[in-house]
Amino acid sequence: MKFQEKLDKIVAKNNSLLCVGLDQGEWEFNKKIIDQTHDLVCAYKPNFAFYEALGVRGWENLKKTVEYLRNKYPEIVTIADAKRADIGNTNQGYVTAIFDELKFDAVTVNPYFGREALQPFLDRKDKGIIVLCKTSNPGSNEFQDLVWQKVAENVAKDWNKNNNCLLVAGATYSEELKKVREIVGEMTLLVPGIGAQGGDVEKTVKAGLNSHKAGMIINSSRGIIFSKNPRLEAQKLKEEINKYR
Amino acid sequence: MKFQEKLDKIVAKNNSLLCVGLDQGEWEFNKKIIDQTHDLVCAYKPNFAFYEALGVRGWENLKKTVEYLRNKYPEIVTIADAKRADIGNTNQGYVTAIFDELKFDAVTVNPYFGREALQPFLDRKDKGIIVLCKTSNPGSNEFQDLVWQKVAENVAKDWNKNNNCLLVAGATYSEELKKVREIVGEMTLLVPGIGAQGGDVEKTVKAGLNSHKAGMIINSSRGIIFSKNPRLEAQKLKEEINKYR
Repeated sequence: MKFQEKLDKIVAKNNSLLCVGLDQGEWEFNKKIIDQTHDLVCAYKPNFAFYEALGVRGWENLKKTVEYLRNKYPEIVTIADAKRADIGNTNQGYVTAIFDELKFDAVTVNPYFGREALQPFLDRKDKGIIVLCKTSNPGSNEFQDLVWQKVAENVAKDWNKNNNCLLVAGATYSEELKKVREIVGEMTLLVPGIGAQGGDVEKTVKAGLNSHKAGMIINSSRGIIFSKNPRLEAQKLKEEINKYR
Repeated sequence: MKFQEKLDKIVAKNNSLLCVGLDQGEWEFNKKIIDQTHDLVCAYKPNFAFYEALGVRGWENLKKTVEYLRNKYPEIVTIADAKRADIGNTNQGYVTAIFDELKFDAVTVNPYFGREALQPFLDRKDKGIIVLCKTSNPGSNEFQDLVWQKVAENVAKDWNKNNNCLLVAGATYSEELKKVREIVGEMTLLVPGIGAQGGDVEKTVKAGLNSHKAGMIINSSRGIIFSKNPRLEAQKLKEEINKYR
C-alpha cells in the first residue's frame, strides 16, 4: 500500500490527525505509550537523535519500537524523524537503513542538497518523503526565510512525480503554514511545534487543513509522552484538533 | 586539545591535507585502509549512511573504527560525516551520540535550521563543527544558490565565537570555493568532491588555501578505499595536493 493511502485509512479509522513523537530512546517506555494511545493517533514518529544518544542500544530500541508497531498495530503510520540528507549515492545508504532495515513508512529529509541528491528517497514510490520547509524553532528564519517558499514550490511542482512527498511546516509559524498550504494544494503537511514549543492548536489547524479537512499530521512529543496520563493528553489534543476541522 | 590545534599538528607532522573517507560499513576493511594510510593523512571521515545501512552491526562497526583510531593513531583527526541537524533540544541527542558516545573530534552539520538550533553543537568548544555551505553534488544549486554566501558570512561572523567552526565547500565548484575562502578568512574548509566526483586538484587547492598554505581538509573516498592499492592512491593524491600548496 502507498503511504498516502495508508495514512488516509488510519486518519479515517481513528478520526485523528494526531502523531505522537516518541522522543526518548527506551523501548519499554515506548511500548507503554503505544499501547495507551494507538487508537487515538494516525502516526508515531521516533526522532533518531534520542536513540542515537544511547549508542548501539538505542539503535536496537528503535528497531524494536518500529517492529512492535508493524506487528501489533500495522495500520498506524510510522515516521522516521531522521532529517537525513547527503549527496545522491550516499543517500542510498540512508534509504536502505530506514526503509529496508528498519522498515519505516516515511522519513523526514533536509532539502539543502536539492532534489537531484534526494532522488534515492523520492524513487521509493511506496514511502512518504517528508521534506523540511519551514521548521518550528525560533531561529528558523536565519536561512529558511530565503528559501522556504521555493522549497514548497519546487517540492509541489518538481519533486512529487510519485505523489509521495509531504512537507514540514511548524505550528509556531501559522502565517507561513497558511502560505505553504496555498502553495502546495492538497499535499499532506507534517506539523510539529504544538504543545511544549508553543504552537496554538486552533490557528494551526485552520491554517493547515486542505480541502478535505485533513492533509495534516500534527505532532506532539513531550506534551504527551512525559505527562502523567499520556492517554488523556493524547485524547484531549486529538479532540481539540478535531474541534477546528 | 582543541580541534584546530589537533588538526594543525597532524597536518604539519604528516605534511598532508588529505582526508580519507571511510565510506563503507565494514570494520575489518576500515582497519586495513587505516593501517595502510595513517602516515599520509590528516583525517579520516566515516560517512554514517554506509554504517546505518547495516543496522545495529553497522553502528558497532562505526564505533570500532573510531575507537581503533583513537587508541592506535590518536593524533589523527576523526570526522563524523553525519550531516545532522534538528531543533535545539533534539540536537543535544546527536551531540551526545557523536561526541560522548562515539567520541569523534568533529561533525558535519546542516545549516537549514539556523544557528539557534545548532547551539548544542557550537557549545562544544573542543570539537570541530563543520557546517555545510556549498556541497559538491550536481544539483546543489537548487536552494544553496540563494543561501550559501549568507551561510559563509554568518558562520564566519556569528557562529564562530568558540573558534570551532569549519565550512564544507565542494571541489566540484572551484569558483564558489574561492569565494567562500574570501568570505571566511583563515577558517578551515572541508572539501569533498575530488576524484570520483570530478573535482580538479590544482583548481581546488589554489582556490581554497588560506594564507598559511593550509586551511583545507581535502577528502577522497571511493578513489582511494576501493582502489587496488589504497596506500599508493593516497600517496599520489597527498603529493598532488602538496604540489599546489
